Amino acid sequence: MAQLIDGKATSAAVNNETGCEVRRIQSELEITPALTVVIVGDDPASQVYVKMKQKRADEIGIESRKIALPSKTTQEELLNVVDKLNEDNAVNGILVQSPLPSHLDENEVIERINPAKDVDCFHPYNVGKMLIGSRDAFFPCTPQGVMVLMQRYGIDPSGKHAVILGRSNIVGKPMMSLLVQKAEGANATVSVCHSRTKNIEEICRQGDIIIAAIGKTEFVTADMVKDEAVVIDVGVNRVEDSSKKKGYRLVGDVAFEEVEKKASYITPVPGGVGPMTIAMLMQNAVKACERQNKS
Amino acid sequence: MAQLIDGKATSAAVNNETGCEVRRIQSELEITPALTVVIVGDDPASQVYVKMKQKRADEIGIESRKIALPSKTTQEELLNVVDKLNEDNAVNGILVQSPLPSHLDENEVIERINPAKDVDCFHPYNVGKMLIGSRDAFFPCTPQGVMVLMQRYGIDPSGKHAVILGRSNIVGKPMMSLLVQKAEGANATVSVCHSRTKNIEEICRQGDIIIAAIGKTEFVTADMVKDEAVVIDVGVNRVEDSSKKKGYRLVGDVAFEEVEKKASYITPVPGGVGPMTIAMLMQNAVKACERQNKS
Repeated sequence: MAQLIDGKATSAAVNNETGCEVRRIQSELEITPALTVVIVGDDPASQVYVKMKQKRADEIGIESRKIALPSKTTQEELLNVVDKLNEDNAVNGILVQSPLPSHLDENEVIERINPAKDVDCFHPYNVGKMLIGSRDAFFPCTPQGVMVLMQRYGIDPSGKHAVILGRSNIVGKPMMSLLVQKAEGANATVSVCHSRTKNIEEICRQGDIIIAAIGKTEFVTADMVKDEAVVIDVGVNRVEDSSKKKGYRLVGDVAFEEVEKKASYITPVPGGVGPMTIAMLMQNAVKACERQNKS
Repeated sequence: MAQLIDGKATSAAVNNETGCEVRRIQSELEITPALTVVIVGDDPASQVYVKMKQKRADEIGIESRKIALPSKTTQEELLNVVDKLNEDNAVNGILVQSPLPSHLDENEVIERINPAKDVDCFHPYNVGKMLIGSRDAFFPCTPQGVMVLMQRYGIDPSGKHAVILGRSNIVGKPMMSLLVQKAEGANATVSVCHSRTKNIEEICRQGDIIIAAIGKTEFVTADMVKDEAVVIDVGVNRVEDSSKKKGYRLVGDVAFEEVEKKASYITPVPGGVGPMTIAMLMQNAVKACERQNKS
């Protein structure tokens, strides 16, 4: 039976450390790290995410501000908002909540953010620094959350075969970039599978570490998992469930019940990778503040 | 017996097309694409590479200029040279020949180059655009040379398992980034092996496409290659050979004689990937010129 990787407890420990960092910065530099979240329109899921981020920031002691813009905001107006935040020395981190309304060009907005304030690590400059293996890059929140979870549970990917399911810009591609680096806590042999992969089960079975980010409910079944594999589930899928108040429950990309019998470690959904994402965002905001004020 | 992938002939065809592009730009925009190569010190191999690049540029009709700086050049002096080239509208592409003397910070120099003129695609911004999958990025010369070789020989990586040996910033990591993209000519399942990989032979044997860039003479032997695999050899190793004038011959990372009996396609060394690198550099210089003068 696999040991459960508790993302809730781990993220709480990380957040606690981040809070200590905030107080250290406050006493050493007499400033408080500040994060501004920009949200355009009224997508309900985005509203929830932004609220969660602000709540966490408040708890940790990071100053958080929300700029809520109407759905009809034009590209130029949004870029102007970003420009002002870039210029404002009191703003250390800028996050534009995705997705933007479809009339807006998200890539252009991301590229407009000063890379030094890009706490999501979506700006091409930061993405490139990560791939090159620069240690002074920001790391993207969800993949970095996976790295930290492994580290805290004493799982060293070095020399292990990590099989990543999914090649998104948010999870799969940065995950492969982080794991393949010649660096402590990385050094994995990496395979990336996706919708075009023909023998996904066969490759998956080779994984000493499996990272599922493919967006398919319970896609990874026990027969796809090697004995004693580490299984990290990044999937968050809604499944109808009339017994729940909301009418659905959240299910990962891994068939948890059968896979936990074979794996050595496994993350649950919810309560696994999820809480780590925001914890890493908070770390990045603090890191941004420190860098901006150190030299 | 494998079909030989002729990099010399393919690069000649590509260079010919690039020459046509140059003449089209000259007639449409009344400008000639211009590439400046900066070389510091007197490393003999670098001198040869720079000469080859200039010769090719001349043949194609690209204006080429060499700035040769003494070994003792300071970081500040080199950055000043880059700044001037960035500002000079008559310079479309800037290439700083690697390696720099050890007292210089190569990363800082690369980051100083205007990304729009970074024809090597070593600037983090361009590296990030490539990983994200932006089609208006530059592509790094050697990996893109491999992509074009496959394309010209009708080898579609889609759904194939591409095994990359090596994780350098010049070949392995960009190669994985290009092959994994959701894009025509890509869409491969990608595995990256390196010095820490434990079962490299076993993974290599799964490759429908093997890309060897590990820097070890004849590392890939026939028993590591699946029947009918496509084998691309990026290695360039010097092996002592008293029968040669220079005292050495160039050998790849693949044991060519035995592997060509099993593979479906194979690149020789020399005459495979090598000539494609400069051909892609020339394409990038022309692309840079066109982009800089179009809007």
